[in-house]
Amino acid sequence: MTNQPTAVWDSLKRDAEERRAAARPYVQEGKVVAADDTVALLEAVIRPGDKLNIEGDNQKQADFLAECLCKVDPAKVHDLHMVQSVLSMGTHLDVFDKGIAKKLDFSFSGPQAGRLAEYVREGKIEIGAIHTYLELYGRYFMDLTPRVALTVAVSADKNGNLFTGFNTEDTPVIVEATKFKQGIVVAQVNEIVDEVPRVDIPGDWVDFVVQAPKPFYVEPLFTRDPALITDSQVLRAMMVIKGIYGEYGIQRLNHGIGFDTAAIELLLPTYGEELGLKGKICSYFSLNPHPTLIPAIESGWVKSVHSFGGEVGMEDYVAARPDVFFVGPDGTMRSNRAFSQTAGHYALDLFIGGTLQIDKYGNSSTATATRVAGFGGAPNMGCDAKGRRHATPGWLKCGEEYGIQSELVGDLPRGKRLVVQLQETFREKLAPGFVEELDAVKLAKNANLDLPPVMIYSDDLTHIVTEEGIAYLHKCTTMAERMAAIRAVAGFTSVGMQEDPAETAGLRERGIFKTPADLGIDVARANRSMLAAKNVKDLVKWSNGLYNPPARFRNW
Amino acid sequence: MTNQPTAVWDSLKRDAEERRAAARPYVQEGKVVAADDTVALLEAVIRPGDKLNIEGDNQKQADFLAECLCKVDPAKVHDLHMVQSVLSMGTHLDVFDKGIAKKLDFSFSGPQAGRLAEYVREGKIEIGAIHTYLELYGRYFMDLTPRVALTVAVSADKNGNLFTGFNTEDTPVIVEATKFKQGIVVAQVNEIVDEVPRVDIPGDWVDFVVQAPKPFYVEPLFTRDPALITDSQVLRAMMVIKGIYGEYGIQRLNHGIGFDTAAIELLLPTYGEELGLKGKICSYFSLNPHPTLIPAIESGWVKSVHSFGGEVGMEDYVAARPDVFFVGPDGTMRSNRAFSQTAGHYALDLFIGGTLQIDKYGNSSTATATRVAGFGGAPNMGCDAKGRRHATPGWLKCGEEYGIQSELVGDLPRGKRLVVQLQETFREKLAPGFVEELDAVKLAKNANLDLPPVMIYSDDLTHIVTEEGIAYLHKCTTMAERMAAIRAVAGFTSVGMQEDPAETAGLRERGIFKTPADLGIDVARANRSMLAAKNVKDLVKWSNGLYNPPARFRNW
Repeated sequence: MTNQPTAVWDSLKRDAEERRAAARPYVQEGKVVAADDTVALLEAVIRPGDKLNIEGDNQKQADFLAECLCKVDPAKVHDLHMVQSVLSMGTHLDVFDKGIAKKLDFSFSGPQAGRLAEYVREGKIEIGAIHTYLELYGRYFMDLTPRVALTVAVSADKNGNLFTGFNTEDTPVIVEATKFKQGIVVAQVNEIVDEVPRVDIPGDWVDFVVQAPKPFYVEPLFTRDPALITDSQVLRAMMVIKGIYGEYGIQRLNHGIGFDTAAIELLLPTYGEELGLKGKICSYFSLNPHPTLIPAIESGWVKSVHSFGGEVGMEDYVAARPDVFFVGPDGTMRSNRAFSQTAGHYALDLFIGGTLQIDKYGNSSTATATRVAGFGGAPNMGCDAKGRRHATPGWLKCGEEYGIQSELVGDLPRGKRLVVQLQETFREKLAPGFVEELDAVKLAKNANLDLPPVMIYSDDLTHIVTEEGIAYLHKCTTMAERMAAIRAVAGFTSVGMQEDPAETAGLRERGIFKTPADLGIDVARANRSMLAAKNVKDLVKWSNGLYNPPARFRNW
Repeated sequence: MTNQPTAVWDSLKRDAEERRAAARPYVQEGKVVAADDTVALLEAVIRPGDKLNIEGDNQKQADFLAECLCKVDPAKVHDLHMVQSVLSMGTHLDVFDKGIAKKLDFSFSGPQAGRLAEYVREGKIEIGAIHTYLELYGRYFMDLTPRVALTVAVSADKNGNLFTGFNTEDTPVIVEATKFKQGIVVAQVNEIVDEVPRVDIPGDWVDFVVQAPKPFYVEPLFTRDPALITDSQVLRAMMVIKGIYGEYGIQRLNHGIGFDTAAIELLLPTYGEELGLKGKICSYFSLNPHPTLIPAIESGWVKSVHSFGGEVGMEDYVAARPDVFFVGPDGTMRSNRAFSQTAGHYALDLFIGGTLQIDKYGNSSTATATRVAGFGGAPNMGCDAKGRRHATPGWLKCGEEYGIQSELVGDLPRGKRLVVQLQETFREKLAPGFVEELDAVKLAKNANLDLPPVMIYSDDLTHIVTEEGIAYLHKCTTMAERMAAIRAVAGFTSVGMQEDPAETAGLRERGIFKTPADLGIDVARANRSMLAAKNVKDLVKWSNGLYNPPARFRNW
């Protein structure tokens, strides 16, 4: 035996104790540190080379802690490895500019995607990988455990108990991974209170709390003004409701962000009702509280919504609908991105969203050659969850139709998740929606990535919906046939121009391609008059005044 | 607009308040209910038709609450829909016998698999579906939210704060889903204390706590006595270490339960060291605290282990190794099955385990015709996680070798999870390990299941290891070729007897089939002398006396 009885097995714990001891001068009562001492606190508890999580969620931001991190002395704190789900504020990149951080593992970088690509080219940032949210959380318990987490909550008591409330998002999973691997947890809060409305994170799990000078920033990410929905979007939404949701009896789903899916939500109480689909589709959602879902909820369509995060202005509405949303004993929603993504991966029968580019094979991406935007949660929901073992009718039907099933698993039955991409053949500025090669391939070269950032791979994609019709791609038996089906819906793009009309006619006969007419949809009816709400004001009315849209969405 | 301003949107909340009011006579101080009043408490808070979770984990059991549930009056409480991850105690089936419960959605039923199949045939139980753990948790936030959860913890204070400690397992995810959808949470605990050692579940989230007459039952599920490992298992373990772990540089993995994987663990400090693989493989695990991993940990192989649950006797050892395990500020491990399965799905490069049957296509199952055993976590880890977007060398290599990649995604690169099945060609009583058709197919008919309970599907399986050698199945370009590769390792089973030697020779040339000799392994060395520990006593020595094996494993 070669074991080491004198080896040290608690070096992480000893190190954390040293860091906490160094921070002691800044601690007031309990675990409270004054805002003015925050930079000093961070210099005390962060060491060079640490894996650092800054929250950094899809919506809420530990913005004060991010600002303070930019002010630490790079001689003391440098070479950090940032492991954060979202990189969305200027400060998240400033730390790389200042030499405080070096490496980045993340999921989504929306507004900072261009600057991120620039920094990578300049060698200021080394990218580990771009992840799906749930994938990154998984790595927090494996090989990317944060040494220090800078988190954010609505309020805290002096013992560190946190109330994260409506915008819980990623906080529980970050704090659990960090604290139980002997890490340090710092939380910024809007206020220190005597007693929190409910405990979302137990005080034992938190080392320091700081009352920030102003409330944390939250982005209204899922608000879409119905006034901006086009007739073309209404047409695609009608096709989806009749040709996919109705056809497969889709009860459990997620809608990506965008006007296309907002149109679907707003057609449920009108076109959906007309088709007699109420109760037969769209009963259960993994979804942020989309304002455009209000009319469907109010019309009794929706049984349950579990949310990844909140949505600005929806607080009172959600609180008043606890039969539908997950709401705590204190009356506030508890969102939870880790669990909503878990449901999104394993309990959904369908994921639908928009994209920027689809290649001739059916791979899609929102990347462009100069923006490292990341994925968020889409690949986790927009893929076939291979570990799934429970059956639902729509999932089974899609599996029965799957053209290459026997090459994959022999004679055994298996279902398949429906993954739908809504696409315009041409977007703004005539950018084609279908391309020979994804810009993601160029980006991977530019940004030195191991893999092109593909949002949804071809073998996971089952349906493409364009103004031309629906391609039921999963029914194809070969890649060649799949490519023909893509050409059929690709319109006048370079991919679509290669369409062979005889081939397309064959696909139509076999139900692999369906036009609006094949689906029994009168294109003349596809216009905005079908929408249950025509503008934000209508949504407020539907909510009986409970929805309180952000100022920039109020134009009345 | 057709919204309903007078509609009731808080019926679940009102109903829960009624239930809590009905339970009020049994509540002593705070949230405490006396053990003697537990049956009355359950009759007050459970209503006919409820979705009920009884914990029911892989290891720890809410056994007292399960006994009490069997004693409720079926005239008051009936037609329950049980949604629980594990069905392992007699009481879990007694509730169906007594007419208290009717329907079951679950993940694993190990010791009760035979009786479960019998009840299904007799119409006493209607099975919803058999799930992977993480899949069932996902449904808790979608369409299978428990109305009442009967959970279990080590201790509670009077306000309901729970300490779940070493055996946290499923508790957090069950309680969160139940409580925030206005459900009722009852916890049995070993003792009511003034202050819990740490808060694992905040008291806000718990309605009632009961001190059970005796500590909850925990099954030592992952303990394997090295004395029972065979030479044949040592051979397979050598092949795995050299031909798979070494070949692909596998750093992040999970080991299924069993002697085969125990053999691998015990060969790391001997054979692994000899091959110079220390630091290059097996650094990160999602794994329960396997006693057979102690020698590898003590020899400095393992950087991190995150655990689904605990393992009886490993408490002190784990507490003394906080650099490796996830341990709380109180000094006790926090396990968490939901997060460990998340890591197991998205952050693993390899899953390896044993099975009972593999069919000629490569589908495998542990089901027999008369036992509804379920899956546990295997399919979640033993599948290709399609939403994964980060790259590691072994995952990329497996993807590059994947024979049907271009038919699936065109010319884009993508990695692939390694999924390995260890199999003896014949098990005890000459039961063949390879079959024409899985018994699972018969079982599905017998038990009226929507799908045969397949543990791992052929397209997810990359390697089979038998005493004949390793089949690198993912390299095959067609199902016909894959079937030939399976025949090559299937020995004298009916599947193996159909082997065509010329075809096998061709597969060997292409590296799709490798014998021990091809791998440079001297079969004569494959014996028990290679094991770092020969018996349980050796494991205790390796642990410096910290491992405290259960009595039944002590034979010295």
